Amino acid sequence: MSKSMDYENLNENVKKCQYAVRGELYLRASELQKEGKKIIFTNVGNPHALGQKPLTFPRQVVALCQAPFLLDDPNVGLLFPADAIARAKHYLSLTSGGLGAYSDSRGLPGVRKEVAEFIERRDGYPSDPELIFLTDGASKGVMQILNTIIRDANDGILVPVPQYPLYSATISLLGGSLVPYYLEETANWGLDVVNLRQSVTQARSQGITVRAMVIINPGNPTGQCLSEANLKEVLTFCYENNLVLLGDEVYQQNIYQDERPFISARKVLMDMGPPISKECELVSFHTVSKGYWGECGQRGGYFEMTNISPRTVEEIYKVASIALSPNVPAQIFMGLMVNPLKPGDISYDQFVRESKGILESLRRRARIMTDGFNSCRNVVCNFTEGAMYSFPQIRLPPKAIEAAKQAGKVADVFYCLKLLEATGISTVPGSGFGQKEGVFHLRTTILPAEEDMPEIMASFQKFNDEFMEQYEDYRGYSRM
Amino acid sequence: MSKSMDYENLNENVKKCQYAVRGELYLRASELQKEGKKIIFTNVGNPHALGQKPLTFPRQVVALCQAPFLLDDPNVGLLFPADAIARAKHYLSLTSGGLGAYSDSRGLPGVRKEVAEFIERRDGYPSDPELIFLTDGASKGVMQILNTIIRDANDGILVPVPQYPLYSATISLLGGSLVPYYLEETANWGLDVVNLRQSVTQARSQGITVRAMVIINPGNPTGQCLSEANLKEVLTFCYENNLVLLGDEVYQQNIYQDERPFISARKVLMDMGPPISKECELVSFHTVSKGYWGECGQRGGYFEMTNISPRTVEEIYKVASIALSPNVPAQIFMGLMVNPLKPGDISYDQFVRESKGILESLRRRARIMTDGFNSCRNVVCNFTEGAMYSFPQIRLPPKAIEAAKQAGKVADVFYCLKLLEATGISTVPGSGFGQKEGVFHLRTTILPAEEDMPEIMASFQKFNDEFMEQYEDYRGYSRM
Repeated sequence: MSKSMDYENLNENVKKCQYAVRGELYLRASELQKEGKKIIFTNVGNPHALGQKPLTFPRQVVALCQAPFLLDDPNVGLLFPADAIARAKHYLSLTSGGLGAYSDSRGLPGVRKEVAEFIERRDGYPSDPELIFLTDGASKGVMQILNTIIRDANDGILVPVPQYPLYSATISLLGGSLVPYYLEETANWGLDVVNLRQSVTQARSQGITVRAMVIINPGNPTGQCLSEANLKEVLTFCYENNLVLLGDEVYQQNIYQDERPFISARKVLMDMGPPISKECELVSFHTVSKGYWGECGQRGGYFEMTNISPRTVEEIYKVASIALSPNVPAQIFMGLMVNPLKPGDISYDQFVRESKGILESLRRRARIMTDGFNSCRNVVCNFTEGAMYSFPQIRLPPKAIEAAKQAGKVADVFYCLKLLEATGISTVPGSGFGQKEGVFHLRTTILPAEEDMPEIMASFQKFNDEFMEQYEDYRGYSRM
Repeated sequence: MSKSMDYENLNENVKKCQYAVRGELYLRASELQKEGKKIIFTNVGNPHALGQKPLTFPRQVVALCQAPFLLDDPNVGLLFPADAIARAKHYLSLTSGGLGAYSDSRGLPGVRKEVAEFIERRDGYPSDPELIFLTDGASKGVMQILNTIIRDANDGILVPVPQYPLYSATISLLGGSLVPYYLEETANWGLDVVNLRQSVTQARSQGITVRAMVIINPGNPTGQCLSEANLKEVLTFCYENNLVLLGDEVYQQNIYQDERPFISARKVLMDMGPPISKECELVSFHTVSKGYWGECGQRGGYFEMTNISPRTVEEIYKVASIALSPNVPAQIFMGLMVNPLKPGDISYDQFVRESKGILESLRRRARIMTDGFNSCRNVVCNFTEGAMYSFPQIRLPPKAIEAAKQAGKVADVFYCLKLLEATGISTVPGSGFGQKEGVFHLRTTILPAEEDMPEIMASFQKFNDEFMEQYEDYRGYSRM
């Protein structure tokens, strides 16, 4: 007899969900690493794992909050600047019992107030701390909101394809339906509202109630930045179709071009004025894991709700309370991120130097990587306008696709596994994000250290040349 | 037309779930606090919020891990002892990129190894780090496991009543069925296997497939410690009925009597030998939030799986990976908890002094509180053998029950609200944990500072006297 927790008896939704960012490629890379091979983990946007140093000031503040007894030590000034000491005292005053006490399940009220002030400065419209919930990273926030929305397999969520698989995995786990809308690679991964309409019409014809729409801006894995005009179209579409818009804006600090600076969905919505600004439901997500912070391991994030009914907000609060509270140290990081140092503060110059250094290097790396991919045989790649990823299309020769089939692998998984074995570069196959039939990609972060980039790109090029050589039959590519 | 996220359109399971520990009483207490009233939050086991000081050594280590640049500072030795510096270096060497990098989704391999070694020392049987997953607190681990098990409303989970409402809330949220088994108040909250059998038989007659059984040892809210003989009966019952046992052992350090020291379900299972020791499925939970640590706000926990099929372990790993990783600072706390200082270490004496001080005081407080409640009119209370709670039965006069009904409140909610308004003591009504029909309790933590205890108990007694005076009609009590 099979046991209660044997595979065949598990929740089917658990079995169905897939998360390629830590899927087959990652597992194989971890094995190879254990065997002693040097692996470059570019499968996940994890800057510190690739050598990015943390910003000094926030780490000083959180260290002091963890060890508040240092504040009474006469020598504290030898190791910590006065502004870090003052800020640590400020955050400790917002807690009731320091970092070791559960906070309110929505997060510390004082930090939520700082987030609201940040949003107001950014967008020019006031924000209500009572509608801001702190979370253990943005992913957990997305999962909470989707859990509130999805009732059964007839509830559909519009998700861009290619998409970050948090969305596909969570929708599977919750037993909902993913309704894809395709981004146009040839239009720089643009979002076309005509595609949206078609997707919704088709879903409805299959009995799906489309409830929500996800945008990722800047895009993951696609790296595009949405224009204000495009966001207006999206909001109008959501309003007309009674969809709540989930705005994944975790890469808002990561912009590598000047034509389209980041603009939040909330600002665009407020700019549009009534009735839409008072009606259209919006939940926006942010994190301390990305930007020039890259504090992934701390697990800090927030979501802000706009035009969500008070009774629903209460329900979300109730569910958040089951796990008591998000981790408190990351709440302090969030406070520090949204309320940074100001000119004149003792540590300001260092803070600016560090953060600018990271962002400017990322901008150069985005360029090096795009150019590197575009110089490779059978590879084309849009420029990374924002976020942390490069998403080149790999035009696989028919013989490679055939070889993959014989190996029982999806063709891009086959390619990425060979890349991993040959070079140690751990990427994610495009099929993990969704793509059009017969088109193949891979996702890599732009995060390896700048000085390592030339070598990594050369190593990629050499592998790709040999791969194409091996499988090229001069009869044509997989697709243009 | 109603909007997508209006209350009537939400996931019904979200609406159904209840979590009384932060329910009506907590919300009212928060309001009163905002209005300036002094509130004693004894609704949740949150020691630092009630003044418990964190242990110095682990905070020193984590502060150094947050600010690794201090390790290169010539003055570091002025603020940190050498063993904290050495330990911080050790934990940083277990990460790939410090606290700012995502770890493996199961947690850092080096910390999971320390957990396995702790379990082996505790139980006398080896433990496999690959079967230990670190989590953002034990609650999150329980939710992950229940999500893996529960398929639909026909799947039943045996839960003790009274129970910690994490279980009822999570089972509701996941759309499963809670199958209650009653603990016997008159037998010191003992677990009777005859009750278990009856519960399972009754559930099966209603078409429920009972899949898992929860034990909380030491008990929450009931405070009893399970004997080895009792655990053997439970394990045999699970084995015979093909149930996975979920062992909530988060209070294993919190023991306030000497007759029944903590013994883990895993040790008892291993002691029983084959076939049961090789067959019976068990998942055990632990945390840094309780014990003498009380590091609730850090959100650190683990679960260990015994006799769970490898394919199921892979599925649990896959789902854990969707949220990337548990927070890394709390993983370090877990390492420090399971691998504490040893005699001879520089900080050992201080560590022992601090931790013994907390535990001995908790033992005294458990006694003060039990005795205090038992000296009150119409109140009877079992001794808190372990955990952090006192769960007195309040024998409400019929007139009080009638008055509650007229106020539209459950009778114990009515009592606890009056207690809150009169004294500022924020408790949780027994109905939030489940209890037999017509019997009323409240749960309070034993965590207020020892020096405040006499005043709190006097304040309770005064309120209770006045309440009983007001509603007593000399015609009898609610029950017993």
